[in-house]
Amino acid sequence: MESFEVHILGCGSALPTTRHNASSQIVKIGNKLFMIDCGEGTQLQLRKNHIHFSFINHIFISHLHGDHCFGLIGLISTFGLLGRTAPLHIYAEKELERLMKPQIEYFGKGIVFPIIFHNINAAEHATIYEDNTITVETLPLKHRIPCCGFLFREKPKKRHLIGDAVNYYNIPTYMRQTIKDGADYTTPEGETIPNSRLTKDADPSRSYAYCSDTLPCPENNIYLKDVDMLYHEATFAESEKGRAATTHHSTARQAAEIALGANAKRLIIGHYSSRYDSTEELRAEAAEIFPNTESADEGKVFSIA
Amino acid sequence: MESFEVHILGCGSALPTTRHNASSQIVKIGNKLFMIDCGEGTQLQLRKNHIHFSFINHIFISHLHGDHCFGLIGLISTFGLLGRTAPLHIYAEKELERLMKPQIEYFGKGIVFPIIFHNINAAEHATIYEDNTITVETLPLKHRIPCCGFLFREKPKKRHLIGDAVNYYNIPTYMRQTIKDGADYTTPEGETIPNSRLTKDADPSRSYAYCSDTLPCPENNIYLKDVDMLYHEATFAESEKGRAATTHHSTARQAAEIALGANAKRLIIGHYSSRYDSTEELRAEAAEIFPNTESADEGKVFSIA
Repeated sequence: MESFEVHILGCGSALPTTRHNASSQIVKIGNKLFMIDCGEGTQLQLRKNHIHFSFINHIFISHLHGDHCFGLIGLISTFGLLGRTAPLHIYAEKELERLMKPQIEYFGKGIVFPIIFHNINAAEHATIYEDNTITVETLPLKHRIPCCGFLFREKPKKRHLIGDAVNYYNIPTYMRQTIKDGADYTTPEGETIPNSRLTKDADPSRSYAYCSDTLPCPENNIYLKDVDMLYHEATFAESEKGRAATTHHSTARQAAEIALGANAKRLIIGHYSSRYDSTEELRAEAAEIFPNTESADEGKVFSIA
Repeated sequence: MESFEVHILGCGSALPTTRHNASSQIVKIGNKLFMIDCGEGTQLQLRKNHIHFSFINHIFISHLHGDHCFGLIGLISTFGLLGRTAPLHIYAEKELERLMKPQIEYFGKGIVFPIIFHNINAAEHATIYEDNTITVETLPLKHRIPCCGFLFREKPKKRHLIGDAVNYYNIPTYMRQTIKDGADYTTPEGETIPNSRLTKDADPSRSYAYCSDTLPCPENNIYLKDVDMLYHEATFAESEKGRAATTHHSTARQAAEIALGANAKRLIIGHYSSRYDSTEELRAEAAEIFPNTESADEGKVFSIA
């Protein structure tokens, strides 16, 4: 099964610290790299984590606060210096295009690759990206400005052929894709072999959701249901619940409640306020509600098996 | 004598590496902090180097290539989050104001401190900043776009009173500043005491020049003459002289020749191309021509005694 990994490039919040970078992560599915958010310094984090710039073709921006997008212009400039020719797709609220176009025109002289802005509506749940194996959906969040999460989902996969059965029935090559899709096989003698004797279950379709920055949004549970891994912001501890509500953020406990309500398999917390020297306090708080909680940290890679 | 220090926050060139950050440095004279250039990630470097954000009131931008200015918007946002009220002065070619204004309006909601853009003409030598102890002059440089260096110079200082002589002649307090300025003193009995018996030489007026990015500009020697410390870009080694010329940069040898021609006391090289794993090659090349050469590195502090 191909790899499905989340590489944490930054999991701090707005105020920079020496412990955490501004928000950014890479979702790596097979050899496809998707970037979520791009705070200042993201391109340096890519270097440090030995991630190939040129494999990044799609960047999803959750919302237009600086700690989620100030690294874009530097990354785009570096793509230009590296001689990139492949189109770059950026998914964000439409204001980003207005703000970036003059900068790209001025600083990006000599850039030859197309930059395609896909204006998304953070207030609605929609599929904004699709290829032969993956879809990406928006998840409306509740922040001080329009903001959405992103749900990455593998499409249903084909069933596995049972090698011995294929050989025994001497199934011709041109039939095999149809059988992997679930068809029965009729032999030249007219006997029908049910698909269950020819194939094994397909690999599961894995999913990953990113929810930051936001108040708790249990109304997204219908989309998040059974998600394999959920990254949810936990800017504050429950002791700062009032401050979390005022600033439209979540506490670690609230992140865990969302994971529980959505029946997620794992929870990764992040987007830590600069007031926390260690993230263990936040992780432990979440783990009381949702035991399978891990804390994000720069350089950590979370794999979905 | 108050301190005069240059703190290196970044001394790499356009392509990011894990060894060097984009250009930025702090000139600290007494308790005044001046920033020169502000590449992406500068605010993180300020944190790492424990430099007080709030003491930075003046930022000088040499030219509008991203590796010299992409960190500005993040720094300004952070100033806002920290509740800054003091005006921030930015000195740069006028295009910067046009490019930053929409970003500041959008991302800087809630910012209460004034941001004052001083549009400079990089093509001319001029004094662009002056206070009671310091002047800052532009130095026209030769790059692919308008670019200037900056020359920080302490104003001439007052002479030191000789305590014993002040007591002996019982010089009244109101006369002392005039005597520090060089005046003689006439006693109530009508005797004139020459200034030389009342004062010692003033501390020297120190100077620091920043020249990056540029081809060698020996025509600036008249301004740089006897400078205490010169930071000069040395993007390439002499073996890449052709590439340096094409890209409008200098070699380490050329930087040393400028230091020699200007009769500088010290040379600091920086703005290294990403191709150099170590800067020792560049420093050694410069030191053959100008022995008192040091190499910049992130976190290094160079003091002028």
